Amino acid sequence: MLIGILGGGQLGRMLALAAYPLGIRCRFLDPAPDCPAGQVGELVLGEYDDPKALATFAKGLDRVTFEFENVPEASTRHFAAAGISVFPSPECLRTGQDRLAEKQLFTALQIPTAPYAVADSLDSLRQAVATVGTPCVVKTRRLGYDGKGQAVIRTPEDIDHAWQRLAPAATKVGLIAEAFVRFEREVSIVAVRGEDNAHAFYPLTENVHAIEPAAGGGILRLSKAPAPGADPDIQRAARAYAAAVMDRLNYVGVLAIEFFLTRDPQGRAHLIANETAPRVHNSGHWTMDACSCGQFENHIRAVAGLPLGDTTLHGCAAMLNLIGTTPPINRLLQIRHAQVHLYGKDPRPGRKLGHVNIAGPSWDAIEPTLRELTGLLAETDA
Amino acid sequence: MLIGILGGGQLGRMLALAAYPLGIRCRFLDPAPDCPAGQVGELVLGEYDDPKALATFAKGLDRVTFEFENVPEASTRHFAAAGISVFPSPECLRTGQDRLAEKQLFTALQIPTAPYAVADSLDSLRQAVATVGTPCVVKTRRLGYDGKGQAVIRTPEDIDHAWQRLAPAATKVGLIAEAFVRFEREVSIVAVRGEDNAHAFYPLTENVHAIEPAAGGGILRLSKAPAPGADPDIQRAARAYAAAVMDRLNYVGVLAIEFFLTRDPQGRAHLIANETAPRVHNSGHWTMDACSCGQFENHIRAVAGLPLGDTTLHGCAAMLNLIGTTPPINRLLQIRHAQVHLYGKDPRPGRKLGHVNIAGPSWDAIEPTLRELTGLLAETDA
Repeated sequence: MLIGILGGGQLGRMLALAAYPLGIRCRFLDPAPDCPAGQVGELVLGEYDDPKALATFAKGLDRVTFEFENVPEASTRHFAAAGISVFPSPECLRTGQDRLAEKQLFTALQIPTAPYAVADSLDSLRQAVATVGTPCVVKTRRLGYDGKGQAVIRTPEDIDHAWQRLAPAATKVGLIAEAFVRFEREVSIVAVRGEDNAHAFYPLTENVHAIEPAAGGGILRLSKAPAPGADPDIQRAARAYAAAVMDRLNYVGVLAIEFFLTRDPQGRAHLIANETAPRVHNSGHWTMDACSCGQFENHIRAVAGLPLGDTTLHGCAAMLNLIGTTPPINRLLQIRHAQVHLYGKDPRPGRKLGHVNIAGPSWDAIEPTLRELTGLLAETDA
Repeated sequence: MLIGILGGGQLGRMLALAAYPLGIRCRFLDPAPDCPAGQVGELVLGEYDDPKALATFAKGLDRVTFEFENVPEASTRHFAAAGISVFPSPECLRTGQDRLAEKQLFTALQIPTAPYAVADSLDSLRQAVATVGTPCVVKTRRLGYDGKGQAVIRTPEDIDHAWQRLAPAATKVGLIAEAFVRFEREVSIVAVRGEDNAHAFYPLTENVHAIEPAAGGGILRLSKAPAPGADPDIQRAARAYAAAVMDRLNYVGVLAIEFFLTRDPQGRAHLIANETAPRVHNSGHWTMDACSCGQFENHIRAVAGLPLGDTTLHGCAAMLNLIGTTPPINRLLQIRHAQVHLYGKDPRPGRKLGHVNIAGPSWDAIEPTLRELTGLLAETDA
């Protein structure tokens, strides 16, 4: 079995490392010769819309998947037309690329979202902000992730500034304004669906984003699973929402949905869906070391038409991203029970260079290691 | 960091898969274009003694190691002479290649062995058998592993037949006759030593070899850790023996020692050293899924001059080799908690094609999975 993966970043790299032990080979398409996946697998060098590169890449592939959602939908349709199954399907990719389509899907499936409105000009942005109220977040409909391509509007006076920043993208792909959600936590679910309609779910994960720009403002810094504060009802709701999305899209592969966890005046927790990712997800990296079958292996299994693996988390897990800089490797490896995953990238501010997983029977068991690790990172970032 | 690995078999493949998450790259030298490691890493195609291939392979390497002990010692000396550190050292390789040198090392370190004697002709074989007694095992001094290149002598009448079989090798590399040990179990220890003289040890493993030739007679079939019947005294003795061998050889990397576990009339257990392997070892494959740091990662850490990782086994683990044939992958992956590792090899009788690890808190927890798996293998082998 040979799987073609569009994109050669760290997610592709980790997909390949999960595929190899199943006897499955991977080929990547990526324009960067030094991309993380090209260091561990066969790389076809080229743009995602270059017909010649696509033809070279396609030769002998059994399946195609993608490791990020900004590959051209047309390229994936090209494979599907040539009789090579693409999982998740081009339809799933299109939905994942478009914040509006996502929101409309949530609405159609009665999954709660923040109030939202579309804008593609300065005037319609003013109207959209009036509709959803302030504070609100304005985002490009496409091509933004990890806090890039977003602006917070606290008062109507912020609109002009936001428009200036986002206008180049807005005129091409449109904007969406979303009411600001006063959340207790940001959480996400990573789910997987097989060709045979089997479903599996990892527990809800809490995600803490870095605030300081030097440490990658807006970029995921820390994940904790199971998400503290997510009771069994909330876990069940998240699974039901993920199942509804996957079933509606006839989805095959790993899907992530990010939620805001809110609490009503009675103290009951609620989930507000924020966005989906039609791929393996940073908030699922802890599954590699804490579950019998991690998200990367489960995505490969689903894409390859194989039975899904066990997603049970026994105990607790945490994941820390290494952003911009990495501590000296010998210092990192001295930390007992820290599972280090480096991506083979050169350091650059705001760049995800690796992550560290910690798993254990309880938070009490994990926390000393987590403290040691955050201490080392603080030292390195300083 | 770029590590060159002599040999591109499954051990090399798994070394690379353990190196990548540490941000370490691997390059392989192997004469087989379809070798397991070449599927997951850079491969230089060539014989191990081909100066041109060695030169291409050597370019830019930071360290060199090997994944099997039958690479020419001269090739490893070539790197050492060129200023590229070779771990374990050429001296360690030479000892691991020669059963007599091993036995003499055990003797020098007061590690118990079976009585042994050297033979390089039919006459001296007769004398050697007389010295060690019957039944005994006659082995080539070099190039034999996994039961190949061995003959059992039950009565002196078997000597001629054994000589006929082994003579072609014997005249080149000599034979060694070893008294037959009436053992209770075969066990092994996998140990690792760092450049900084740090030591780490995995618990003793019990090894069960396949008897039926169809299933790969003499080839390791099942490993169980910690070895049943190995009490703390025996575990301590095994660690002390491994430490003595590593320290004497100034060893860097993973070393395995195979022992016979015997029991004296008083019921006390004893270890009789059988042989060493100067590399990662099949009986340590379970460590990949049952320890925070498996043998492959620890070998890479040691070779790269990094701190050693945690070798603690919480609970129990078992490993089953897939020999000659593999069950359909979808059947294998249906077995919950079975961790499948395939090597990307074509099936062939007696060939190690992959292995399956099972880890759990207790034997009771593991045994249902192990039974399911052995049932599936019996079905496939039939």
